Amino acid sequence: MPIPAPEPGQKRVVIIGGGFGGIKLTGALLRKNFQVVLFDKNNYHTFQPLFYQVATGGLEPDSIAFPLRKIFQHRTHFYFRMGEVDCIDHRQNKIYSSIGSLEYDYLVIATGSTNNFFGLESRKDQMLTLKSLLESLDIRSLLLQNFERALLCTRESEKEALMNVVIVGAGPSGVELAGAIAEMRKWVLPEDYPELNFKEMEIYLFEMSERVLATMSSEASEKAARYLQKMGVNIRLKEAITDYDGKLACSSNGAKIATENFIWTAGVKGAIVKGLPQELIARGNRIEVDEYNRVKGFENIFAIGDVALQVHEGYPHGLPMVAPVAMQQGVHLARTLNMLAQGKSPRPFKYVNKGAMATIGRNKAVADIFNSTFGGFFAWFIWMFIHIMQLIGFRNRAVVFINWAWSYFTYDHANRLILRVYKRPGRQQRKKKRDSEICR
Amino acid sequence: MPIPAPEPGQKRVVIIGGGFGGIKLTGALLRKNFQVVLFDKNNYHTFQPLFYQVATGGLEPDSIAFPLRKIFQHRTHFYFRMGEVDCIDHRQNKIYSSIGSLEYDYLVIATGSTNNFFGLESRKDQMLTLKSLLESLDIRSLLLQNFERALLCTRESEKEALMNVVIVGAGPSGVELAGAIAEMRKWVLPEDYPELNFKEMEIYLFEMSERVLATMSSEASEKAARYLQKMGVNIRLKEAITDYDGKLACSSNGAKIATENFIWTAGVKGAIVKGLPQELIARGNRIEVDEYNRVKGFENIFAIGDVALQVHEGYPHGLPMVAPVAMQQGVHLARTLNMLAQGKSPRPFKYVNKGAMATIGRNKAVADIFNSTFGGFFAWFIWMFIHIMQLIGFRNRAVVFINWAWSYFTYDHANRLILRVYKRPGRQQRKKKRDSEICR
Repeated sequence: MPIPAPEPGQKRVVIIGGGFGGIKLTGALLRKNFQVVLFDKNNYHTFQPLFYQVATGGLEPDSIAFPLRKIFQHRTHFYFRMGEVDCIDHRQNKIYSSIGSLEYDYLVIATGSTNNFFGLESRKDQMLTLKSLLESLDIRSLLLQNFERALLCTRESEKEALMNVVIVGAGPSGVELAGAIAEMRKWVLPEDYPELNFKEMEIYLFEMSERVLATMSSEASEKAARYLQKMGVNIRLKEAITDYDGKLACSSNGAKIATENFIWTAGVKGAIVKGLPQELIARGNRIEVDEYNRVKGFENIFAIGDVALQVHEGYPHGLPMVAPVAMQQGVHLARTLNMLAQGKSPRPFKYVNKGAMATIGRNKAVADIFNSTFGGFFAWFIWMFIHIMQLIGFRNRAVVFINWAWSYFTYDHANRLILRVYKRPGRQQRKKKRDSEICR
Repeated sequence: MPIPAPEPGQKRVVIIGGGFGGIKLTGALLRKNFQVVLFDKNNYHTFQPLFYQVATGGLEPDSIAFPLRKIFQHRTHFYFRMGEVDCIDHRQNKIYSSIGSLEYDYLVIATGSTNNFFGLESRKDQMLTLKSLLESLDIRSLLLQNFERALLCTRESEKEALMNVVIVGAGPSGVELAGAIAEMRKWVLPEDYPELNFKEMEIYLFEMSERVLATMSSEASEKAARYLQKMGVNIRLKEAITDYDGKLACSSNGAKIATENFIWTAGVKGAIVKGLPQELIARGNRIEVDEYNRVKGFENIFAIGDVALQVHEGYPHGLPMVAPVAMQQGVHLARTLNMLAQGKSPRPFKYVNKGAMATIGRNKAVADIFNSTFGGFFAWFIWMFIHIMQLIGFRNRAVVFINWAWSYFTYDHANRLILRVYKRPGRQQRKKKRDSEICR
């Protein structure tokens, strides 16, 4: 069933990606002027800032995702297609995807970002990452599976490797994950595994730069570091991970840490689509765009969000790869296209930085907002409120609220199911031990 | 870290399976007399009667599962081990598992049941089933993926096959699933897929016997069949499925139905563990037990729940394979073992049938309780109340309640994420269509 031609007077906008930018854009485009075709490889939009809570058993995956079709129910001239766009043919104004090809009048690349392993690309199969809902579930499952395995160990060294956690990168994801795992170590794991001694479990947070949360104020960084240290997280600044073979992590300072829980949050890069001229792909694998989010050299191709590199006043190396930029660019691009359709001239994009925040644990968060830095309970409360309000749908908000209230009053992370059988590719399955392991 | 020897005076009870029987038994065994080792291949207990709601997007998986370690937190002399028991060596009083071997004083087999494909065993890779949380998620994902695929079809026959649903077996699982899918077809799918014509989607429910819900009263059967017919479910009684090749289902009456959504709920059999004498494995692959749930011919091996075949007054072919039997046997076996430990003689098991119920849709359920049959809103309300109360944990109850209230007032099934990439084994991946499929 092909997508019909746009109505007379309408132009077709093809949007690749239903993330924060893509859905804001779709929502704000004028229906009478545009036929919108939205591609995403999943049938749901995810609230990425809370992936770390799925990874640590605080939330179930369904409560931070929302079906894309549901978001745009009853919208006319709108077509969602689940599929991956492989390639752009800008000469023919056409995209090629896993489900077929399609012509466009306007193309918007809103594909977001993916993990950047820098020099360790060849080791990526050994690492856990936090860039999708399924990756978050994998972290949860592997951590819990490794505690189950630790129970069976007779050798101390093997047990330690199964319990230790190494997180690389102290941006918001790394910091929030380290905090949540430290809370699990304190409140949840000793109750679940009374046979294990959690004093032996170490949580390492490696960061190449000089401070945690390097994009926030130095006051926020200091507060966050203090919270993490108080919770027993081993922060290693100005220290890079140079190798990891699935068992042993090596650092630039010569440290060797035995761990089977190695989580990489150290870098992202633009998730570009093939077909654009190579010279447009700049720093961080991002596509250079002008102040209208137009891909340089093209009249009808745009890029927004993480994948777009837009130089802006105060941001000579491009705007940061964060949700608020994507959302503002999405809304602004809709306005731009609406104005073009009406024959008016669009205005350049202006980013309004409303601040940043990160949660470390219960009653512990940091926030750079209203031109100052807050910490402690106030920042934590604001963080919770803003995150609940940003979720889509009453049901999701209610379910997240119940989970958080539950965790707060019981010190529990309730969603501790091992839901996927985590199989690390490229490694042999452990041999079945048929005897003498757990004998009386 | 081996499991320590039981304290002096204690006996070790090894329980295989953390289902309804296993957890009731564990909970009721006297701590001072027994060391309990509970095996399960998952780290969670599931509430199987609600699998069909996970399959149809009504509930998220986490809300009907509960971590086994959490259930027995703070219990002394208790060890949970995640692993599969492969084999019993009854001469040595020892079990062999995926994580090692272990000696027992008492062994309890509470492994439940698995799918029985009867003559179609060789076709099982083509079928969807509903016997685990992951299987439920697979049904949800495949149904939704097939609607996404139907959008791309140009041939009418292909599209119909992607939309049609065939359910085999009109027991409670089949009936509840058929009802829930019919509700989705009425309220949810036309909103999500305005491009598809859901008048073309057929839901078939095949049943070999003379009526749906054959284990309930004939009045309940009639009511349920009437509800289903009113919701547009195509009930085919006294008609068996003779073959299914992944595309076409053939029935004993010569019907041929094109469908890619084929769900098998037509039979279960005991999930036995190797090592017991073959002559004890009776009808339905169940293990013959006496009135104390003792496996025939053994002093210290017991079986409870679906896997046990216990002949009982009024049930000459054995008690039914349902949760209440397993729960009552679990509690009763704990009492039996407690009495043996105290040198008293145990009493034989008496099953109390508290009735049966099944939900077909909103305000539509049937119940055989209090010696009579109810239908409609009253039965539906009782069904909801009982199911919420039977869930473990306040958080699960609250989240299920929110989901149900949401669905009731909005006619929505909110959890429509395609969460697993469903790969049907033994079939080739669809080739990528690179051109002309969705062209303008």
